Amino acid sequence: MFHDRPVFPRGFRCASRNVGLKPTAKDLALFASDVDASAAAVFTRNHFPGAPVILGREIIKHGRLRAIIVNSKVSNVANGEQGIINARRMAAAAAAEVATAPEHVLVSSTGVIGVPLPIDLIERGIRGMAMDLQDDPLVGAEGIMTTDRHPKALSLDVGGATITWVAKGSGMVEPNMATMLVYIFTDAAFDSTTLDRMLRAAVDESFNMLSVDSDTSTSDTCAILANGQAGHVDDGAFAQALVAGCVRMTEVLARDGEGADRMIRATVRGALNNHEARRVAKSLVNSPLVKTMVAGADPNVGRLLMAVGKCFECTIRPDTTDAWINGTPVVRGGIRLDFEDAVVRSTLGAEVVDLEVSLGIGSGEARAYGCDLTAGYVAENAAYYSS
Amino acid sequence: MFHDRPVFPRGFRCASRNVGLKPTAKDLALFASDVDASAAAVFTRNHFPGAPVILGREIIKHGRLRAIIVNSKVSNVANGEQGIINARRMAAAAAAEVATAPEHVLVSSTGVIGVPLPIDLIERGIRGMAMDLQDDPLVGAEGIMTTDRHPKALSLDVGGATITWVAKGSGMVEPNMATMLVYIFTDAAFDSTTLDRMLRAAVDESFNMLSVDSDTSTSDTCAILANGQAGHVDDGAFAQALVAGCVRMTEVLARDGEGADRMIRATVRGALNNHEARRVAKSLVNSPLVKTMVAGADPNVGRLLMAVGKCFECTIRPDTTDAWINGTPVVRGGIRLDFEDAVVRSTLGAEVVDLEVSLGIGSGEARAYGCDLTAGYVAENAAYYSS
Repeated sequence: MFHDRPVFPRGFRCASRNVGLKPTAKDLALFASDVDASAAAVFTRNHFPGAPVILGREIIKHGRLRAIIVNSKVSNVANGEQGIINARRMAAAAAAEVATAPEHVLVSSTGVIGVPLPIDLIERGIRGMAMDLQDDPLVGAEGIMTTDRHPKALSLDVGGATITWVAKGSGMVEPNMATMLVYIFTDAAFDSTTLDRMLRAAVDESFNMLSVDSDTSTSDTCAILANGQAGHVDDGAFAQALVAGCVRMTEVLARDGEGADRMIRATVRGALNNHEARRVAKSLVNSPLVKTMVAGADPNVGRLLMAVGKCFECTIRPDTTDAWINGTPVVRGGIRLDFEDAVVRSTLGAEVVDLEVSLGIGSGEARAYGCDLTAGYVAENAAYYSS
Repeated sequence: MFHDRPVFPRGFRCASRNVGLKPTAKDLALFASDVDASAAAVFTRNHFPGAPVILGREIIKHGRLRAIIVNSKVSNVANGEQGIINARRMAAAAAAEVATAPEHVLVSSTGVIGVPLPIDLIERGIRGMAMDLQDDPLVGAEGIMTTDRHPKALSLDVGGATITWVAKGSGMVEPNMATMLVYIFTDAAFDSTTLDRMLRAAVDESFNMLSVDSDTSTSDTCAILANGQAGHVDDGAFAQALVAGCVRMTEVLARDGEGADRMIRATVRGALNNHEARRVAKSLVNSPLVKTMVAGADPNVGRLLMAVGKCFECTIRPDTTDAWINGTPVVRGGIRLDFEDAVVRSTLGAEVVDLEVSLGIGSGEARAYGCDLTAGYVAENAAYYSS
């Protein structure tokens, strides 16, 4: 279903560079459409949004984008009025480079919070980038990486059109009504209102159910651009493909969570309603004790009940609660089953650990995505600023 | 104010033993009053309470206790009806040993969830414990340790009476309307209704504001016993002393959080109300990125704003938000100040890290207690069941 190697839809290209924010790795990416595209976006709900998010909320009201300019290493958050001025300068420089108006450029910055944005380096770096624009989405993905271990991009076809996702994740990831940095490009033709509706529905099932570490970034941004070059595509088919790709990218981000060795997928069924199922699924992927159990492949499955049971406001009945790990039953009716430790230990060692919980209350269901908690996460984040 | 070395109030004694649940360390403790004591208790809000908690809720309705029997290593949770039977057998054995009725004995079990309680070893081990009863609260504290690095007990005098706390903490600690295992003994005279009211007020300010890792145990129990042997003590003075001791024990538990090198104390002022102040203070001590920042003494102070800002439902204004670390201003009006990295790095290296946030909205305030997140926490919990 997904392309083996991601490609851009018709009329989209990107470029990336090192402009001196990092010692040698790429730290600036430009994504551009040949023509104006309909656009929609969702942003972080954090009360301290970065300057690019504040500007982005304004920009997206026009419902049209031509380009996205993104730097990594410094997030341009908690920088006051100067942060806004710098974000506007960044938009203006990119607009000049691709010959459009600044209000058609979305800006993102990701990295350390509270450090001034080196705007001179960025302005100088943007010059000439239009000459480098090329077809490979991974080139842009590389420019927006922070602690990501690999660049992230996906493509799939729907109708006569293509949809392409470019993203970064890693740490400070529990998006809430928004997400980390994800850019979605398509050559299908949709107006921005339709795009907005489809984007919110897809994000709700995917990135909003992801948590690497329960911390919500001040820079989360998920935007979609549709330049119409492939013409009309069926709404239903497109919406379905959009969800599928967002879910797949969510899994990619979970698997590459900071320090993570394994992805955790928590599926909850039989909840009172979908809302409660989401709460319980999130509680499972957010529990440090469930996450370390997976990290150590330690069959300490009682922790699943602990994590379910601490959803105080949800309807939970011990006697109707069952649980499985990668298909192996470990709890029935709230009682730990007498399984072979070795069997559970071995399945916990898999790269994808599926935790399933059936609550036996109603028909609510949800799936959440996370990763294990390792010493690598601690090491990485105990010196993120200094290194 | 606190005794240099904890002592028991008049008429309380304890004993502890190894009865074979652990290889050699003590794993069973008995606390007893010479006469019946008024009693109150609060328990975990987790939906999967352990058998001792289910039994304890029943027992505490009588408002009178003579003894507490506690084992460590196995928590007797998720064991179904057999768990309840075993908890009752444990109460009966202790009751026989101190010559009282089983409904005057509180039972607690702490350790791995979902493993059957070795009740035969416990019953055999209880026999003769009354002969070992002695004056030192640390002897009892030793018998209830799991991953605690040291036994925990405190005493202070109020009026003509003494109050003594005996506790264990370490991991799976974010009590909610309840707490981990804490037993409070006093020889002051109070009825159980008054004790209950004072206990709930004290717990709310102290243990309910503690989080080692955001996970809520299925066994949390906090009980107070007043045997009246010191006669009447002024309500107000007693309530104040009770809060002071609970807060101090909360700090002891935070400092000895699993794997912790440092205690984090987050004080929030100027919130819309106390409820919102509590939410923000808890968000700070629960953020893995704030916790790893402290672990690494990394001056990545923007993370404080991230953790404040992700309290979506609270009233937060970036332009009125200030923050300090151990008295050093690091944020003013939502903007990171231009401080010397070395100064903040050095203060983050202190054993107690005080994070202060002023929200500039109203007069709500709260303090929460936590600890740093280290590779030691991960190592300990990746093999808790297996080791």
